[in-house]
Amino acid sequence: MPTRRELANVIRVLSMDAVQLANSGHPGAPMGMADFAEVLWRDFLKYNPANPHWWDRDRFVLSNGHASMLLYSLLHLTGYPLGMDEIKHFRQLGSRTSGHPERDLDIGIETTTGPLGQGLANGVGLALAEKILATHFNRPELPIVDHHTWVFVGDGCLMEGISHEACSLAGTLELGKLIVLYDHNGISIDGNVAGWFADDTPRRFEAYGWQVQSVDGHDADAVAQAIRAAKAETARPSLISCKTVIGWGAPTKAGTKEAHGEPLGVEEVAATKLRFGWTAPPFVVPAELKAAWDHTAAGRAAEAGWQQLYGRYRSAYPQLAEQFERRMANALPTDWAQTRQAALSAAQAVSAPQATRASSQLVLNAIGVALPEFLGGSADLTGSNNTLQKISRSIEPGDDAGNYIHYGVREFGMTAAMSGIALHGGLVPYGGTFLTFSDYARNAVRMAALMHLRVLLVYTHDSIGLGEDGPTHQPIEHLNSLRLIPNLTLWRPADAVESAVAWSEAIEHQSGPSALIFTRQALPQLARTTAALAAIRRGGYVLLDCEGLPESIVLATGSEVSIALEGVKAATAQGRRVRLVSMPCTELFDAQDAAYRESVLPAAVHARVAIEAGTTGLWWRYVGLSGRVIGLDHFGASGKAPDLYRQFGITAEHVLQAILEAIAGET
Amino acid sequence: MPTRRELANVIRVLSMDAVQLANSGHPGAPMGMADFAEVLWRDFLKYNPANPHWWDRDRFVLSNGHASMLLYSLLHLTGYPLGMDEIKHFRQLGSRTSGHPERDLDIGIETTTGPLGQGLANGVGLALAEKILATHFNRPELPIVDHHTWVFVGDGCLMEGISHEACSLAGTLELGKLIVLYDHNGISIDGNVAGWFADDTPRRFEAYGWQVQSVDGHDADAVAQAIRAAKAETARPSLISCKTVIGWGAPTKAGTKEAHGEPLGVEEVAATKLRFGWTAPPFVVPAELKAAWDHTAAGRAAEAGWQQLYGRYRSAYPQLAEQFERRMANALPTDWAQTRQAALSAAQAVSAPQATRASSQLVLNAIGVALPEFLGGSADLTGSNNTLQKISRSIEPGDDAGNYIHYGVREFGMTAAMSGIALHGGLVPYGGTFLTFSDYARNAVRMAALMHLRVLLVYTHDSIGLGEDGPTHQPIEHLNSLRLIPNLTLWRPADAVESAVAWSEAIEHQSGPSALIFTRQALPQLARTTAALAAIRRGGYVLLDCEGLPESIVLATGSEVSIALEGVKAATAQGRRVRLVSMPCTELFDAQDAAYRESVLPAAVHARVAIEAGTTGLWWRYVGLSGRVIGLDHFGASGKAPDLYRQFGITAEHVLQAILEAIAGET
Repeated sequence: MPTRRELANVIRVLSMDAVQLANSGHPGAPMGMADFAEVLWRDFLKYNPANPHWWDRDRFVLSNGHASMLLYSLLHLTGYPLGMDEIKHFRQLGSRTSGHPERDLDIGIETTTGPLGQGLANGVGLALAEKILATHFNRPELPIVDHHTWVFVGDGCLMEGISHEACSLAGTLELGKLIVLYDHNGISIDGNVAGWFADDTPRRFEAYGWQVQSVDGHDADAVAQAIRAAKAETARPSLISCKTVIGWGAPTKAGTKEAHGEPLGVEEVAATKLRFGWTAPPFVVPAELKAAWDHTAAGRAAEAGWQQLYGRYRSAYPQLAEQFERRMANALPTDWAQTRQAALSAAQAVSAPQATRASSQLVLNAIGVALPEFLGGSADLTGSNNTLQKISRSIEPGDDAGNYIHYGVREFGMTAAMSGIALHGGLVPYGGTFLTFSDYARNAVRMAALMHLRVLLVYTHDSIGLGEDGPTHQPIEHLNSLRLIPNLTLWRPADAVESAVAWSEAIEHQSGPSALIFTRQALPQLARTTAALAAIRRGGYVLLDCEGLPESIVLATGSEVSIALEGVKAATAQGRRVRLVSMPCTELFDAQDAAYRESVLPAAVHARVAIEAGTTGLWWRYVGLSGRVIGLDHFGASGKAPDLYRQFGITAEHVLQAILEAIAGET
Repeated sequence: MPTRRELANVIRVLSMDAVQLANSGHPGAPMGMADFAEVLWRDFLKYNPANPHWWDRDRFVLSNGHASMLLYSLLHLTGYPLGMDEIKHFRQLGSRTSGHPERDLDIGIETTTGPLGQGLANGVGLALAEKILATHFNRPELPIVDHHTWVFVGDGCLMEGISHEACSLAGTLELGKLIVLYDHNGISIDGNVAGWFADDTPRRFEAYGWQVQSVDGHDADAVAQAIRAAKAETARPSLISCKTVIGWGAPTKAGTKEAHGEPLGVEEVAATKLRFGWTAPPFVVPAELKAAWDHTAAGRAAEAGWQQLYGRYRSAYPQLAEQFERRMANALPTDWAQTRQAALSAAQAVSAPQATRASSQLVLNAIGVALPEFLGGSADLTGSNNTLQKISRSIEPGDDAGNYIHYGVREFGMTAAMSGIALHGGLVPYGGTFLTFSDYARNAVRMAALMHLRVLLVYTHDSIGLGEDGPTHQPIEHLNSLRLIPNLTLWRPADAVESAVAWSEAIEHQSGPSALIFTRQALPQLARTTAALAAIRRGGYVLLDCEGLPESIVLATGSEVSIALEGVKAATAQGRRVRLVSMPCTELFDAQDAAYRESVLPAAVHARVAIEAGTTGLWWRYVGLSGRVIGLDHFGASGKAPDLYRQFGITAEHVLQAILEAIAGET
């Protein structure tokens, strides 16, 4: 039987060799973490390489994603369907072994990491989801949801602010099955961290209410003992600070920043192998080591045990089991169509002017009662974001039976945690903040989009229309800058009915996040034909039309649709043929076929006007060089909303003027 | 003489009344902080209301900016030129009393706050600037730079991740003259924070190496004693945790979330005044209280003392004094034109292909030797961002004589700290990270733009051209999303010469931040005429022209200019008349007069093609509906850069094809 050290050295050798062959990558961190990774993956982690989708597997997150070769080595060695050919093609186009791990559950990659700190926050979401589902589904003697979340982090993750947000929340919510192993090697890209990171990290995590242990990360027995203690601690999350040497084993580069982000070099690799007594050729793992690493049989047995348990659960609680299976498969309830209709009907019943954030809440109330997987929340703006449903119940320390998270003033942590919740399965997270503060969370929004996660982002107070809070709180560039994120679907509804459609579409859209943008101020309810109603889901549609080919088309979103409507009516009263297009979701409109787009925006009509209370930039794509865009390319100001709209020219008069000018420019 | 409590109550009354009149705002925090604010502003803070620009004043930052009425009250009462009329127009359009404080040094507002946690990071930058300038300028017995930075924070600030980044850095860098008073009222918008924020904050700050004291924030003597101890501590930054009651004094709403973000209501205001024994009409401060608050004479005397000291310094060290005055006035050295020329010459001497991040470093070396106020740094990517100059010297614990900050993996904290440094004056900060991670700092970039600060943001690895690190690290939407931020100037140079111009322009541009975007991969040096060279600073210019009116115009930036050039040459070889426009800075091009813009992009030419290795969105504004845009509206992939460019069609062949198609579409 090989020693633990020999087993760990397999990871080291594979990591060195793959980085060397790619001539690119990070060898030092995998080499430093190899010893404690071996302990976790061979003695503790619950997984079945033959079924990476097993619902009750432990979740493993490599938050310091640049150490990707550690994960690829582990997946390959333990028996996941990740062949040596993929390892050899590390960091090459078309391989599954990207520079940083990319969510790919078929081979066991739970989440995409690399942007530091976010994997840790994903882990908090994963552990939170486990806890909530366990509370909801488990029954005496039948703990069908009962797994740990393990996160590896580096110094970089712990310098990032998101680590504070996520770990403070994890401590407060007592995520006892979250266990973080900290690769405390003291080296970051600029060198020894003493010059810029002098935290007493154990003390910091104690301040968060965590269990904290410090061990020699190269002492397998000490690591194993710490892991046992962490598992035994069920009330508090655990941090195991593992003191390590980056590039452990490399004769001249170990412990230096040179081991961090570039190949060790042929000579250093050879010298390291010599010290390891490693004689096999590159990318060949001796059979004895391979056998000792192989987790296929153990993994099958582990899952089989759970399947037995689950069989008993299914017999005892068939309805709960059905719900569990549906939710873990991310399928909507069978009566979803009725729920969708109920939400729409509720919205249609609104006749008085209403802020769309209030319309959103109305819709949430209609949907939430029929969607037990719905998990709400807000970054400490619950009353302002209108994210609370009538049936919402807060999850707080000691009470996990609810369906609403007070994330605190932690936009970034909230968003990355929501990704973790979505990654876990069984829950559909939505969470609110002010649109301006989407900035704080921006890279987590991007990561949700990159991972194709159904994360529902509720952004209220969506323009200068929020008024007195002033320019710090008034989003100007945010609508367009969010639209730029690939695979993010942004809805900016104009009234209650569009709000209902937006929510329904967002919930049905499984392959990416949606941003749902709502106003603080009241908006009138719009009249629309049956055809227009049906077309909302196409993202852009004709709300009001003229006879024949329009002379001009006006495009508007959200709170500016009713302003545009006034302007269009005024132009019509002057005998102009003008069409009004409501465009709540540009991404969906762009995805329609050419015939539909032409039917809404005929190429022959050049006198186009767009209006949106934000930057004009992206609208030129719809109106062209001969069009007009009414918006704001500067910051807002503190004042009453109507004063601001007037001051900045977001008015029906201006729409009318632009229509007439655009038409005149045409003739 | 009024009691301290009576003096504090003036703040409470003004805050209640102003919020009530505006029918909008946050009364609770000013009322809770009034007692300790009174102690600081009347007994400790060094300031001269008659000269808010006094260089050696203490800096005061209200990081929990929603408590703006606290600051406005203090400024009004102590004698800054902020009249009662402004207080009465709190939160109204055109007033200087915005919903959240906006940088307005003429009335004593040091920085714009509201987005939580960022004021605290500004404070770290302010204190860091003080320390660096003190080390550089002070001489024995002549401490001309010797002031404290005071920051008020709330629970929200301390939940935000940026508080971790900023305070960890402050502890490491031993910013002993930074003193933070924490309004620990335990109430955030969602209610009692116990459900989402259970940190032992004193312990957390001890982990950062801070001095920590906890006091009753309503006990003026205890607060005074803590402040004295904090001032006596010169090696460590200080946190004074002040336990307070939000809305202190309000009979039914004190200590509740109802006191947080809305007017107390007429009855509650009346009842509170009754308890205070307050009988004066709204917005009238009784003379005795007014007199006790007035700091005009004391402030004049304080500055006069410093002026005497400075007079002695000036006599003893005239050259240093001259440098000090120049730098504090944010003026460039008199030989700046030569420095600019030297940088350009250095760039012109480059002939081999070179990554623009390397060109940037070349320029930095040419400029840095003549610009002692230049303060470099990176968020732990020094070697990758090429931000180190030959003369750079690191500032580290115990050594403040340098000119380079290792900010650690803290993009958001770095950026907000740079704003603080710029706000202080005397230093011109630049700091680097990867372009993708501008996301982490996005709202701080926005705040620098909103405050018109000369903060220089170095973003390298600017496209899929970074290669193997993959989609998490490849910016796609970032160029356009940064361009959307009002008042931010973005440069994406195509070669060494454009890099030199970009740096020079950014340094000369005093009224806003600049983003300097550089490649990881090598780019060829471009030939250009003298006219083209002179026109770079216009943001967009004709790099290569044809005879007569072009049939087609190609626009490109950065690494795509040389690709576009190949495509244009191929089209020219086929007999087409094609112009190539290099557009390193769209903001500056847009700011040129119509004649210049028409000379570069004649309206008559509709067959336009733009190419940039990022989202296409904003380019439609330049090419119109009949144009073509070559870019990426999806995420990248991990692989070698040339493979990715081919895979995603960012090629000269594609440019040629687009030119021919666009021309064909025209005829």
